[in-house]
Amino acid sequence: MPPAHPFDDDKLREECGIFGVVGVQDASTFVALGLHALQHRGQEAGGIVSHDPDHGFNQARRFGYVRDNFTSQKIMETLPGPIAIGHVRYSTSGSKGQTAIRDVQPFFGEFSMGGAAIAHNGNITNANALRRELIERGSIFQSSSDSECIIHLMARSMGRSIPDRMEEALRKVEGAFSVVAMTRTKLIGVRDPLGVRPLVLGKIGDGWALSSETCALDIIGAEFVREIRPGEMVVINGSGVQSHFPFRPQPSRFCIFEHVYFSRPDSILGGRSVYETRENIGRELAKESPVDADLVCPVPDSGTPAAIGYSLQSGIPYAMGIIRNQYMGRTFIEPTEQIRNMGVRLKLNVNRALIKDKRVILVDDSVVRGTTSRKIKEMILDAGAREVHFRIASPPTAWPCFYGVDTPQREKLLAATMSEDEMCRHLAVDSLKFISLDGLYRAVGEAQGRNAECPQYCDACFSGEYPVEPADMLEQGFEMKPAAE
Amino acid sequence: MPPAHPFDDDKLREECGIFGVVGVQDASTFVALGLHALQHRGQEAGGIVSHDPDHGFNQARRFGYVRDNFTSQKIMETLPGPIAIGHVRYSTSGSKGQTAIRDVQPFFGEFSMGGAAIAHNGNITNANALRRELIERGSIFQSSSDSECIIHLMARSMGRSIPDRMEEALRKVEGAFSVVAMTRTKLIGVRDPLGVRPLVLGKIGDGWALSSETCALDIIGAEFVREIRPGEMVVINGSGVQSHFPFRPQPSRFCIFEHVYFSRPDSILGGRSVYETRENIGRELAKESPVDADLVCPVPDSGTPAAIGYSLQSGIPYAMGIIRNQYMGRTFIEPTEQIRNMGVRLKLNVNRALIKDKRVILVDDSVVRGTTSRKIKEMILDAGAREVHFRIASPPTAWPCFYGVDTPQREKLLAATMSEDEMCRHLAVDSLKFISLDGLYRAVGEAQGRNAECPQYCDACFSGEYPVEPADMLEQGFEMKPAAE
Amino acid sequence: MPPAHPFDDDKLREECGIFGVVGVQDASTFVALGLHALQHRGQEAGGIVSHDPDHGFNQARRFGYVRDNFTSQKIMETLPGPIAIGHVRYSTSGSKGQTAIRDVQPFFGEFSMGGAAIAHNGNITNANALRRELIERGSIFQSSSDSECIIHLMARSMGRSIPDRMEEALRKVEGAFSVVAMTRTKLIGVRDPLGVRPLVLGKIGDGWALSSETCALDIIGAEFVREIRPGEMVVINGSGVQSHFPFRPQPSRFCIFEHVYFSRPDSILGGRSVYETRENIGRELAKESPVDADLVCPVPDSGTPAAIGYSLQSGIPYAMGIIRNQYMGRTFIEPTEQIRNMGVRLKLNVNRALIKDKRVILVDDSVVRGTTSRKIKEMILDAGAREVHFRIASPPTAWPCFYGVDTPQREKLLAATMSEDEMCRHLAVDSLKFISLDGLYRAVGEAQGRNAECPQYCDACFSGEYPVEPADMLEQGFEMKPAAE
Amino acid sequence: MPPAHPFDDDKLREECGIFGVVGVQDASTFVALGLHALQHRGQEAGGIVSHDPDHGFNQARRFGYVRDNFTSQKIMETLPGPIAIGHVRYSTSGSKGQTAIRDVQPFFGEFSMGGAAIAHNGNITNANALRRELIERGSIFQSSSDSECIIHLMARSMGRSIPDRMEEALRKVEGAFSVVAMTRTKLIGVRDPLGVRPLVLGKIGDGWALSSETCALDIIGAEFVREIRPGEMVVINGSGVQSHFPFRPQPSRFCIFEHVYFSRPDSILGGRSVYETRENIGRELAKESPVDADLVCPVPDSGTPAAIGYSLQSGIPYAMGIIRNQYMGRTFIEPTEQIRNMGVRLKLNVNRALIKDKRVILVDDSVVRGTTSRKIKEMILDAGAREVHFRIASPPTAWPCFYGVDTPQREKLLAATMSEDEMCRHLAVDSLKFISLDGLYRAVGEAQGRNAECPQYCDACFSGEYPVEPADMLEQGFEMKPAAE
Repeated sequence: MPPAHPFDDDKLREECGIFGVVGVQDASTFVALGLHALQHRGQEAGGIVSHDPDHGFNQARRFGYVRDNFTSQKIMETLPGPIAIGHVRYSTSGSKGQTAIRDVQPFFGEFSMGGAAIAHNGNITNANALRRELIERGSIFQSSSDSECIIHLMARSMGRSIPDRMEEALRKVEGAFSVVAMTRTKLIGVRDPLGVRPLVLGKIGDGWALSSETCALDIIGAEFVREIRPGEMVVINGSGVQSHFPFRPQPSRFCIFEHVYFSRPDSILGGRSVYETRENIGRELAKESPVDADLVCPVPDSGTPAAIGYSLQSGIPYAMGIIRNQYMGRTFIEPTEQIRNMGVRLKLNVNRALIKDKRVILVDDSVVRGTTSRKIKEMILDAGAREVHFRIASPPTAWPCFYGVDTPQREKLLAATMSEDEMCRHLAVDSLKFISLDGLYRAVGEAQGRNAECPQYCDACFSGEYPVEPADMLEQGFEMKPAAE
Repeated sequence: MPPAHPFDDDKLREECGIFGVVGVQDASTFVALGLHALQHRGQEAGGIVSHDPDHGFNQARRFGYVRDNFTSQKIMETLPGPIAIGHVRYSTSGSKGQTAIRDVQPFFGEFSMGGAAIAHNGNITNANALRRELIERGSIFQSSSDSECIIHLMARSMGRSIPDRMEEALRKVEGAFSVVAMTRTKLIGVRDPLGVRPLVLGKIGDGWALSSETCALDIIGAEFVREIRPGEMVVINGSGVQSHFPFRPQPSRFCIFEHVYFSRPDSILGGRSVYETRENIGRELAKESPVDADLVCPVPDSGTPAAIGYSLQSGIPYAMGIIRNQYMGRTFIEPTEQIRNMGVRLKLNVNRALIKDKRVILVDDSVVRGTTSRKIKEMILDAGAREVHFRIASPPTAWPCFYGVDTPQREKLLAATMSEDEMCRHLAVDSLKFISLDGLYRAVGEAQGRNAECPQYCDACFSGEYPVEPADMLEQGFEMKPAAE
Repeated sequence: MPPAHPFDDDKLREECGIFGVVGVQDASTFVALGLHALQHRGQEAGGIVSHDPDHGFNQARRFGYVRDNFTSQKIMETLPGPIAIGHVRYSTSGSKGQTAIRDVQPFFGEFSMGGAAIAHNGNITNANALRRELIERGSIFQSSSDSECIIHLMARSMGRSIPDRMEEALRKVEGAFSVVAMTRTKLIGVRDPLGVRPLVLGKIGDGWALSSETCALDIIGAEFVREIRPGEMVVINGSGVQSHFPFRPQPSRFCIFEHVYFSRPDSILGGRSVYETRENIGRELAKESPVDADLVCPVPDSGTPAAIGYSLQSGIPYAMGIIRNQYMGRTFIEPTEQIRNMGVRLKLNVNRALIKDKRVILVDDSVVRGTTSRKIKEMILDAGAREVHFRIASPPTAWPCFYGVDTPQREKLLAATMSEDEMCRHLAVDSLKFISLDGLYRAVGEAQGRNAECPQYCDACFSGEYPVEPADMLEQGFEMKPAAE
Repeated sequence: MPPAHPFDDDKLREECGIFGVVGVQDASTFVALGLHALQHRGQEAGGIVSHDPDHGFNQARRFGYVRDNFTSQKIMETLPGPIAIGHVRYSTSGSKGQTAIRDVQPFFGEFSMGGAAIAHNGNITNANALRRELIERGSIFQSSSDSECIIHLMARSMGRSIPDRMEEALRKVEGAFSVVAMTRTKLIGVRDPLGVRPLVLGKIGDGWALSSETCALDIIGAEFVREIRPGEMVVINGSGVQSHFPFRPQPSRFCIFEHVYFSRPDSILGGRSVYETRENIGRELAKESPVDADLVCPVPDSGTPAAIGYSLQSGIPYAMGIIRNQYMGRTFIEPTEQIRNMGVRLKLNVNRALIKDKRVILVDDSVVRGTTSRKIKEMILDAGAREVHFRIASPPTAWPCFYGVDTPQREKLLAATMSEDEMCRHLAVDSLKFISLDGLYRAVGEAQGRNAECPQYCDACFSGEYPVEPADMLEQGFEMKPAAE
């Protein structure tokens, strides 16, 4: 049942999308629409909590797509009220199998002053230690999810209001996370002190919305107001938006990979459409690594904007040399051996008549394990291409992410074990070039490139420089890059 | 349950895809893959019949996508053997509701010399009269599908072999159709005398495949051999491919809309990729109807290749001004009122930051009812575009198709009631231009344009000139274009 | 999914129940209730056809229980109108698996004068020959069910009305069958010339009902009018009930096993409740085979009335020594090995404290394979019973039934290979006695016992004397009892 | 989905059955079988937890019957290991709807020394107060079930072992409850100090079982060892059974209604089969309230043993005047209006031919609201009975139960508002007699009848004398019987 893409093990995956609305009728329907627009951030499961004076808190959590679970009259009627929050998630480190529905957010807790629900995107890097201590003191965990720690910390807080308790709880957690939460009447949003994960504020009628990305504001017809600031906590009710800054201020470190791949091209980040940023990345790439060829083709769909940029910069015609099967939203259920072996052909097909005898530049967003790149190169050569040149819209991915992104173990990352030249030989292509880290910074708008002293973004997956110490992972034996390197 | 696209009522829809394989192990798995590649030709339901000496004929028919129904080990094990055929279909004029699974092809019939299964793409234009006569003589119909006539005609034939009976039956039916059929050991393919609907032959190992399009040969790794000829019947078994020509020869009239929209861009028609043909259409359109603007944007996804062609010809940059939600493969089930009203926003979002203050050329494949074009124009203007120019990659669709394509009644077709100028005003855009019929013929490779005496293609939906008389429809009151016109 | 009882392979099973209503609003709801009351006659699947002037014929066919399939508002709304017929069935000789839903009755056929639906209980003994001939002449069968022959014979008839065509068709079929059928306005009922299978007529308000048993008239509040006569065909419409007698008259041979086991105890057969007849059988058995003991216990639930009769006649107290688990309506789905081995304990438990040290008479309705009897005896002895005496409310079942009852092959019938004494030793009980054939005839009301020249009932399963030649079975190699025997 | 009986609102309902096994392979399969045998104690949902050294704790919780949920290889394989406990439950006061699966036991908690699962039958009468206090101190409840209090009390205990913590937790709860619990290696059973709810110990091979009733030991082939004593806590592991007595000793007060209705007739209570006790009740009733009549008929199935006893004592023949439809295990899903109105006829049918012109004694186990009794009386009279005499195998039910039994509010109980004579007139029967409270005590083996000073049983539903103060209910406004009464 849990859907998956055939290339999923060869992409980094954002693990969550969050959305909340207050001050509108049938808030849960807006949340369902918002989550639908954020489905690319998590396809395994989704959950919605709403509150209504007559029925109290209501919750529904389901495996599968928003469109299949949160659209019928029947289910939406069970989620009444003017305030609601929701969550979509990818598979996480939590338990799999029978009881995994317990790990689907939002989580709910009943406190002496009333209930609250909470959903988060990101990762708490000291969750294991917190969990051990809470159990020692008598907390009963209902899930294997790190996020449940926040609810238990709130339950043990002496704070008089739920926002007070949340502030107190959040000061004890480390990591990179954005949070949407709700009480009976208040919608709450938080970004971690570094602002690693995104969160934006929107206005809809007399109400307000919080969302991982602006594309989800568009779908409900909300106006994009501003990004929540790193370290900011907003508490929203009938009288408006109140800002708190519970954390010690730090320079921000937004995830640069949101620009490269995670966010939708129609979302706005830093005042510019993600699509344009990606087109810029393609232009930078064409400047850094030109090559003589007949066609620029994207690896669909994520390589498309950068391929267009590459074409515009280089003057080499853009063409769809690879066609994606529209009907692959979910992978084949329980596929037979034969179907599994079809691999990439189930999803992509080469435009043989177009490619034959051509020198082709293939633009992809990233190389993770390299398994897909290899298969695509073979398809292109089988179709009669004369040359294949790979251009990659991100630097080599050499380090795992511990901030809410699902990455393979370090030794599975192609760039962790090979140089660019070795990768080129490994993939057996005519050339392989990645955009430089500085080039990427330029493309996202940092004219001077990366500030090595104090990088403007979190780029740990490329640089190995982790802005928050991954305490739980170190405990499990992960080795950081030596400071000297 | 039956999936549908949100714009379905504003597109012409191919009603069927057919596929067959003989001479390979587990033929049904290849058929499942082939049908998956043909899913764009019919998403409502699918069926597969296979034959195996030990288990005889086996059949499975299901509503929904191939990937959800014909992929599990469990179901594929019920379809063993070295020969199989399959079918995907859109909703047709057959009965809806409880018993509609009976209308899902392939149909099976037991004759005195053994069984046969048959699946077809297209429409039998004298089905009503045939059905009446067959019932009069004692045939019991199990479905409301026109295709079942063929089985009953075969049952009543005195022919000694199944191919003989099929020849005899086909001579009695009128219309536009491609057929794949199977006996215990033979795979059979037929195209109607005009060759309106497509059918191609492929070679896979020691076996053979028949498919509506070449893209489905690619997915199973089969080599494209040739198109089945108009009026040709091929009978394939262990010893190879035998050709028969049961019909009186006529000049061919292939469906020109297959080039415009129905076929997948990676399929090959007339020796050239459909993608290139569509790029050509875009170039023709740029020549015929240039306009000064900042961006050329496709209406995703079907307008993409023509938009690229328009950009290449005009030099105006190509950009993805409209982003399609990847997770709309199926529409929302039982959507709530609020979700229904979201309409087009569930599927498409405008890249606001990109579009703002720009003069935009929107390239779409066709205008049917015009309802979607209107909504898209509004989205673009809401996002702040300065001008909107529509360019359409086909001539005005003014006549319904009776040859296996689902079209609205004539009075619902925008072009049936309005001139090009009226449509422009109706849509309230800065300009609206369709490719000319001659331009379309040139783009598909007819350098001299359309031969008015004897058109090279079936273009009835544009011209109102029907190459086969739609007998059943005339009986129901449809009025043909006066010959004088 | 198909439900089954754990002892099913050790009981004869009636294969069908039929029910029809005309002249009431929402006829299909009455049919659903009637079928629910007839569920004991067939638990695998059920179907209903109704007709309504606005919607024509409608049909629903489902695997599983009536209560689970034909009770929701949603499904019943698809079956509107003042006339409907229905059918419940056990698994038959038809195909199993994917397509078996095609074998679920009623069957529907469209004739030149309109449609008709038909359902039958029983068996057509010359179905194979008829099917071969019909296929030869061009009929296409949609199911593997014998009953479909009737529809095809009707389609080929030259009769002017549907009842005429049905008469003509029925004259060509041999066997034992009751039929309910419907046209747009007429309800039709037929019993075969020997009247082997039951069919009764009821009155409900201004309308009429036909049913396999009277208990299904009770549930809808209909009044029991009379049994349909052997060889009678009734045609019912607004103006009342017309009788036809299409067959050559013959002495009747009603199935005596309906009295013993098939019919529900609250049904009325021959003017007396089946419960009383079974109590009578118990009394006869007590007269024929008395034994000194402490308790008379039924094998639940079918042995209960005969056990009560045995107790009343013998004066030995009646007690429930074996308790049936109420929650075994369906068997365990895909049971694990361990659960399968639990066998009879899943369904029955001995009342240990009651049975201990007692001499127990166990009364059961029949012994088919003897497997269950053995297990029950072991349970009773394990619980500490001092003696176990079996008393069986039917004669030894030594011959298979070919008239609509599912029986094991002859060699699997315990009584086909062993004498009564051998069976007693085989089961290792202190005594085993069957009622005599004459005793059974007396219990059902034939004071003089069985008329050997011209038996009053069909008792082929006991006597091997088949009133209709089982042509299809002889063709498959079945050997009749030599006439001399 | 949640199954229910059509008379459910007219019966008291036991709310739970519990079962646990340790020391056998695949313990969960035995638990599934045990729960199947206890299904009459709760049909809404069931859950099983098992532990296995390799996989830790595993859990499955489902709505519906054991036979449908816990029998497939696939599900049972997810519950491996040599120790398991399970629970079946009726709907309780917990939340209904979307999230109710959270309320299905067993509950699981992770403590610093390892995990534990717990299931209970009965009711904690001070749960509301406990819950409030626990939330105040920071516990997060995952369900609305009272039983979860025990887990949280354990989590907060300072006890060094899980059994120590459970002892400490149980001393804080009030009410009537039996508990089965498990750690990784130990099976634990507890009965409340009064022993209101049942719990028995069984031996199976080298392992042990705990069960609500002995009938569930029979199904797995376990030997019945003894009842757990009131106030006893047993801790079972490889080395055997250890007894603890954590509570202050009190005279026992076992639920007398277990004898009347809740327990299965083949279970053993107090050394005698429940069936025999019920037969005794019938004999007492015949002595106390004789009447001249032709037949003694049970209201099936619960009135059967008492009817047999009445018949044996009175000499009036026993007969099945009312037949129960075997296929009513679950009620009709979403029944249509018409089906709902059929009411009792869906479940019961009168044996019309048997009843006509007879004077009938109907024996039922209890009268709760009286609605069913009325309908049955009408059916019997409609069938032509001359007289109807009701004999009830329990005293008038005039008070609700707060100890784990679902009873209507006091004002809905017929006996709370009417005298015996008034009820007789209300039901319009020829006579209506209940067994006396002393008669019932005699039938269950108390030769001297009830000891009014210190009753031997809990009979609060008849007497209004509650052995444990129902604190939560008093808080909600329930009024106890005045002491003076």
